[in-house]
Amino acid sequence: MTVRQIYLAGPDVFLPDAIAIGERKKALCARYGFRGLFPFDNEVGEPAPGERIDRAIYRENVAMIRRADAVIVNLTPFRGPSADVGSVFELGLAAGLGKVVCGYTNVASDLRHRIADASRDARGAWRDPDGLAVEDFGNADNLMIDGCLAAAGYPLVRVDVGSGELLRDLRGFETCLKQLAQRQAESLRSVAAGAAVA
Amino acid sequence: MTVRQIYLAGPDVFLPDAIAIGERKKALCARYGFRGLFPFDNEVGEPAPGERIDRAIYRENVAMIRRADAVIVNLTPFRGPSADVGSVFELGLAAGLGKVVCGYTNVASDLRHRIADASRDARGAWRDPDGLAVEDFGNADNLMIDGCLAAAGYPLVRVDVGSGELLRDLRGFETCLKQLAQRQAESLRSVAAGAAVA
Repeated sequence: MTVRQIYLAGPDVFLPDAIAIGERKKALCARYGFRGLFPFDNEVGEPAPGERIDRAIYRENVAMIRRADAVIVNLTPFRGPSADVGSVFELGLAAGLGKVVCGYTNVASDLRHRIADASRDARGAWRDPDGLAVEDFGNADNLMIDGCLAAAGYPLVRVDVGSGELLRDLRGFETCLKQLAQRQAESLRSVAAGAAVA
Repeated sequence: MTVRQIYLAGPDVFLPDAIAIGERKKALCARYGFRGLFPFDNEVGEPAPGERIDRAIYRENVAMIRRADAVIVNLTPFRGPSADVGSVFELGLAAGLGKVVCGYTNVASDLRHRIADASRDARGAWRDPDGLAVEDFGNADNLMIDGCLAAAGYPLVRVDVGSGELLRDLRGFETCLKQLAQRQAESLRSVAAGAAVA
């Protein structure tokens, strides 16, 4: 599939400077030949008469994802050991719609190491203090997230930012863009080679 | 769409008695005329040669969701103020695949009330201590989750369990089943009425 438009998912929208981050991400997209679609409220159209604002945002975000050819999801841990659920919902939706999916996290550690006080039970499995199993597969987050990206051929990009700029650092984001651009170039080259042979 | 098979998503799989919970959920499904599909490892087939176990679980869960007509997702907060990301991924995937989607949470409060130390900024918007915006739309979780279920016609079912059985209480789950069964009966009645007129 030719990727032209990329939906930019992530908790970036919750930052005080969300608009500036969105502009930086869109500029990076343009540098790699893509158009970035940033789901911020001021790009959202008017609610329908009687429609709640949050329902309008939902509707517009889903429409943007449908229009996109790919999504790049910021999966940096958010208010806990795992990624932002809104962004993870969008990753799942995009996968279900057959979009190209990529993702990055600015915390490089395995999920298991971020669950405080996890310990091994009598059978050797990791459990948290509530007795709930802790996945220990070497993934950055829940196996459905890492598994989805691996199956898509774009394994979750992990960057160890380790500073206060956890949600703003764009190195992982740019790595996703590079991979998409490279894959696209390879695919165009093989199409051209096929045409030359034919 | 006629609902026959329902994929049972939720962090229930992390409980020490996950298999027993799965059996209880499947029995409830059967009582309402449905077949429950529970994503627990012992129903997962063998990994392909050289395949990692977590990748095999991912692959089998996705296959189960594709086979299902509907999903019921346990969206009870998990290791933080929001739902389990694996379950939320599955909700998004199911929505993208056009499945019927329902969900419940055993914590009835609004998301905003579960973000510790949130306060209003100069413009009156809620922010957490890191300055990140806190959604205040009266939803139980991120607007993409509540919005998806509302758009599907099955608004998120909230039950105030308020005990140690937070992940095990099945009242919200049964409400989802009742709604699905009722909708199905109505739809069959209107088909029958249409046939009688024709």
